[in-house]
Amino acid sequence: MAPILLNCMGNDHNEYIKQHVQVKNPYLQTMEEDILYHFSLSTKTHNLPEMFGDIKFVCVGGSANRMKAFAQFIHQELQLPGNPEEVKDICEGTDRYCMYKVGPVLSISHGMGVPSISIMLHELIKLLHHAHCHDVVLFRLGTSGGVGLPPGTVVITDKAVDYSFRPQFEQVVLGKVITRSTELDEGVASELLQCSLELQNVPSVIGNTMCTHDFYEGQGRLDGALCSFSHEEKLEYLRKAYEAGVRNIEMESTVFAAMCRVCGLKAAVICVTLLNRFEGDQITSSHDVLVDYQQRPQVLVSHFIKKRLGHIV
Amino acid sequence: MAPILLNCMGNDHNEYIKQHVQVKNPYLQTMEEDILYHFSLSTKTHNLPEMFGDIKFVCVGGSANRMKAFAQFIHQELQLPGNPEEVKDICEGTDRYCMYKVGPVLSISHGMGVPSISIMLHELIKLLHHAHCHDVVLFRLGTSGGVGLPPGTVVITDKAVDYSFRPQFEQVVLGKVITRSTELDEGVASELLQCSLELQNVPSVIGNTMCTHDFYEGQGRLDGALCSFSHEEKLEYLRKAYEAGVRNIEMESTVFAAMCRVCGLKAAVICVTLLNRFEGDQITSSHDVLVDYQQRPQVLVSHFIKKRLGHIV
Repeated sequence: MAPILLNCMGNDHNEYIKQHVQVKNPYLQTMEEDILYHFSLSTKTHNLPEMFGDIKFVCVGGSANRMKAFAQFIHQELQLPGNPEEVKDICEGTDRYCMYKVGPVLSISHGMGVPSISIMLHELIKLLHHAHCHDVVLFRLGTSGGVGLPPGTVVITDKAVDYSFRPQFEQVVLGKVITRSTELDEGVASELLQCSLELQNVPSVIGNTMCTHDFYEGQGRLDGALCSFSHEEKLEYLRKAYEAGVRNIEMESTVFAAMCRVCGLKAAVICVTLLNRFEGDQITSSHDVLVDYQQRPQVLVSHFIKKRLGHIV
Repeated sequence: MAPILLNCMGNDHNEYIKQHVQVKNPYLQTMEEDILYHFSLSTKTHNLPEMFGDIKFVCVGGSANRMKAFAQFIHQELQLPGNPEEVKDICEGTDRYCMYKVGPVLSISHGMGVPSISIMLHELIKLLHHAHCHDVVLFRLGTSGGVGLPPGTVVITDKAVDYSFRPQFEQVVLGKVITRSTELDEGVASELLQCSLELQNVPSVIGNTMCTHDFYEGQGRLDGALCSFSHEEKLEYLRKAYEAGVRNIEMESTVFAAMCRVCGLKAAVICVTLLNRFEGDQITSSHDVLVDYQQRPQVLVSHFIKKRLGHIV
């Protein structure tokens, strides 16, 4: 997975073609200051290249507590100096997101749903750009409802699909709907699947992930405050999803895939299933079982990172 | 604003017609237990009528810190016994949302965007239903971008509109798009405007509120990681919005209005503008100024609640 060696005519014959993080906005270079409002960071008040220039892996997930736990876990796994308990929230000036840096790994929370992760991704991509980062891989580590899989299975996303099982994301720009592709990096997905085979207790599959805009009606749950369909209609929708290759349902993957793709970032989505939606809607597993499930994507991504860094041959 | 007196034949001749919180889901009554997963509450492990039965006002807002501050503020304003600093997060078992109860007032955070608030609303409406609450008013207190208004203006929403300025919310149900009305309660909005006239330093208007699904491209910002339009095209879109009666832009009002309406809940949206979008995209005001702005919807709703409770004649 090494970057391609450049047969260049420049001064440094060993220079690599670096995959810099691209923003797609000509206005950014004209701005004197860029305030990353929801991170409580700015190009004037923070030295972003110094703070973030060495980032190679960005791991994002919905829950602030879980992303703090991941930062502490990866700190131990990479055997970095210092006390893992003392990781510091870089975004402590705001409660919108939390962010931890552990060596070359950035761990950030994004809340629930497409709009919430979209704000975070705009500011994250600008941050990586301002910090001159290159060769960065992004991972979304999450929880999801499983479709025809035993609870606890990790789904590595092949294609992120919408409610009609199409691999696309609809973005409104100035009142007009445009469509973006949600294809993810095949190489990273295969590498993650290979990692899962090297681990105990991280049962994993590659499958499509359906991204919805709510947890109840959009996912066919019978237990929301509103429900206008029958149990049989719910099962029919889930069967159609399964036939379209959908193996889990969550709420952020399409915009994550679309924005990473537009900006030339390699990205993967790794979500554990907390239940099998053919069997129910409510999450009834015990706290301890859920904690075990939620650690599986973390263990998998940690293994991937350690391999990439040469900690595991 | 008193409930209509019922000329009834029952035992209690003074009984009122109570406006009970309605769920629209026939399956709920068949469930032995209802786990409100994102609140970490359940009908089996918690006595919801005892915990929440006296709730009359529910105030929701994006930021967890701000909703805690509001709980402490309303505690002082209602001169309740106990230390306001010691309000306790009822949802401490999860970091998805936070929730504080202060007398008849419930203060809850909902994160950013329609999907995030939608999960919270499903579980909140079920909670109010399970707790046998009646005659409840809901308020969303938020921040927003202003359209042609000086920063710091409070917008009391007339109609919540989508990116095409239509007063509707599109909900996907089992892969099909259905449309719901986003009309809010006119009486509550007028009463809030009257309250603003009785206060110093809470400049308020009634206007339409546009709800978008992201903060950057959907709101016509030139400072995101992606931007494919010109400054002039942005201004044209904002001018059209202004002509359609839009006075501010935020990210939750349509689903809030739609779900409250379907469930027969009186509701209002009160958001302060942090900037005038005709003049820029970045939020550059100082921390102190922003704190002052963010308190304005809280002061307004507190005044409304105190009047309703008879604390102010």
